Amino acid sequence: MYPSLRTSSTLALKQGKAQISHAVFGLSTAGACQPTLFHTTRQNVQHHALPSTRQFTSTARNQLKEFFPPPTEAPHVKRVKSAWGHPVYTKDQTTSISIAHRETKTWSDWVALSMVRLLRFGMNTATGYRHDHAVAEGVKDPTTGSKKSRYAMNERKWLVRFVFLESVAGVPGMVGGVLRHLRSMRKLKRDNGWIETLLEEAYNERMHLLTFLKLAEPGWFMKFMILGAQGVFFNAMFFSYLISPRTCHRFVGYLEEEAVITYTRAIADIDAGKLPKWQSMEAPDIAVRYWKMPEDQRTMRDLLLYIRADEAKHREVNHTLGNLKQDVDPNPYASVYDNPSKPHPSKGIQHMKPTGWERQEVI
Amino acid sequence: MYPSLRTSSTLALKQGKAQISHAVFGLSTAGACQPTLFHTTRQNVQHHALPSTRQFTSTARNQLKEFFPPPTEAPHVKRVKSAWGHPVYTKDQTTSISIAHRETKTWSDWVALSMVRLLRFGMNTATGYRHDHAVAEGVKDPTTGSKKSRYAMNERKWLVRFVFLESVAGVPGMVGGVLRHLRSMRKLKRDNGWIETLLEEAYNERMHLLTFLKLAEPGWFMKFMILGAQGVFFNAMFFSYLISPRTCHRFVGYLEEEAVITYTRAIADIDAGKLPKWQSMEAPDIAVRYWKMPEDQRTMRDLLLYIRADEAKHREVNHTLGNLKQDVDPNPYASVYDNPSKPHPSKGIQHMKPTGWERQEVI
Ligand SMILES: [Fe+2]
Ligand SMILES: [Fe+2]
Ligand SMILES: [Fe+2]
Ligand SMILES: [Fe+2]
Repeated sequence: MYPSLRTSSTLALKQGKAQISHAVFGLSTAGACQPTLFHTTRQNVQHHALPSTRQFTSTARNQLKEFFPPPTEAPHVKRVKSAWGHPVYTKDQTTSISIAHRETKTWSDWVALSMVRLLRFGMNTATGYRHDHAVAEGVKDPTTGSKKSRYAMNERKWLVRFVFLESVAGVPGMVGGVLRHLRSMRKLKRDNGWIETLLEEAYNERMHLLTFLKLAEPGWFMKFMILGAQGVFFNAMFFSYLISPRTCHRFVGYLEEEAVITYTRAIADIDAGKLPKWQSMEAPDIAVRYWKMPEDQRTMRDLLLYIRADEAKHREVNHTLGNLKQDVDPNPYASVYDNPSKPHPSKGIQHMKPTGWERQEVI
Repeated sequence: MYPSLRTSSTLALKQGKAQISHAVFGLSTAGACQPTLFHTTRQNVQHHALPSTRQFTSTARNQLKEFFPPPTEAPHVKRVKSAWGHPVYTKDQTTSISIAHRETKTWSDWVALSMVRLLRFGMNTATGYRHDHAVAEGVKDPTTGSKKSRYAMNERKWLVRFVFLESVAGVPGMVGGVLRHLRSMRKLKRDNGWIETLLEEAYNERMHLLTFLKLAEPGWFMKFMILGAQGVFFNAMFFSYLISPRTCHRFVGYLEEEAVITYTRAIADIDAGKLPKWQSMEAPDIAVRYWKMPEDQRTMRDLLLYIRADEAKHREVNHTLGNLKQDVDPNPYASVYDNPSKPHPSKGIQHMKPTGWERQEVI
């Protein structure tokens, strides 16, 4: 039973530490109390709320908005165009994404990695999450073993985690974009193509968030935590990027290494049958349109594969940008090279280098 | 004689108030001392500096960078792609742009207009510029009349003005974009398509700046002024947009009304033969590529027509956005309407409404 925080905050506290993530992030998923209703309830977003499920959410079901269809107050608007078209990923590409780690080489790398480790520790402690590397890497079967079953994840706990993480994931790209834009105008120099890649990354992360919001409605406490996290993270990124953009890109690279691990683990959980509600569930329409999902690749598992591939792409992009001279080097992802037959950084994921391209390979 | 500030600051002071804009904004234009060299000197950007002109600039001529060609340190990069493609404007469209003013209707409008008037007054006083409405509107011949000939403009004074104004013009769109992006993630709501239009406006303004920088190299004092102006304006816009985005869009609308007047006047000055160096001069390559200028429309006059059309577009966009409910209305410029035969807001300038579309027309 996972009712929303509005009715459950005291209840959750009584249920002990295993419930802490629900108490901290009051987030209600559709039909969380009635597993069989999960899928059909999401469908109701387009129609109307089932009275039987409304009680478990802090906002009425029919307040959830569709993405591309217009707000109801604009009767003549058919749809709103999205900002950046997403490159098409093939199933082969998305399934071949793997966990990777770039070794630290400089002090700046070390600072970036330490910050990510610190944030991961803080976040996991606060939410009572324990990441099992053996499971993530497929060495261990997630359905067995773990003595600490209170750390076991379910659909709802995954969504809590995804929504929270994606709500801050769109910050660094936007901060990098705005600061490079201002710098270009202030120093009267061209930007060499970095801004668009950074803004597009921020948009892509926001699309991850909007997708997960189709599956879950956060309660007020979750909203409050998101508010606080954004306030702190935006300011921290803003000043850090002014001081050392290179360290910031490396930091995002390491953050995305963690994101790939997280989504890999969620996919492993689906495969192990630990997330039965997601087994048959379809990805929301917003996701189908954004990632241009083919008809046979529209399950929740496919969705997580697409998102994991995006995270792996950001991992590569940011590790690469972290290898460059921030002021003078052109953005390899916006560059046209003289020898197109040689693999070069690109927008898609065909020639991906998980630990980034080194400067001498691209400049 | 308009040597750069590095050699002229004391000289300029001796020459009295008419020189104030040169003293305040130390900006050197190519071949300013040798009118006949102006055009050929700009050509030298691609080749090498003429020793005879180098003395009049604060940086060596060959330090000017081409836009699309890559930085010299990246030998394998052929060019860097630009972020947003510019819509094609026809000559009929660019020549039909006219000065317009939206009457204030609310207190918020009045605040926005007053701020613009105050900034205009401050800027004109500081730079010794006097705007002649009669000339701008084509009623008066700019070559005759003005008793205060010290206010007469020349190519260099126009460039000083353009560079300074464009260096802050890219701020509001970026501020609007970043704040709406953060709001969407913080409030867990979709943005309804506003962000891209705002970011694209910011990019377009930055392209205006980079274009003018091909024609003039600012000295250290100008750079210092730009630095200060950005610091103040970015923070002021940031907090104003948090408080009242509507007033900010109206403010930009009024600012762009002024920009259209400014460029109209510069075009009138060319037509009146007051800017002889621009009569035969070609627009820089960066501009030819960005605006996709046809071969017979690549003069400085054409460039100013294109830029004026951009400003008129921002005038319309921001007056329109200022008419909308900021939280719920879709961005009309990213919307697909149910009746495509009826004129609707679009990216181009074919159906432009100088004072903006009213809410009931577009929602
Ligand atoms: Fe993400
Ligand atoms: Fe990410
Ligand atoms: Fe402009
Ligand atoms: Fe403008």
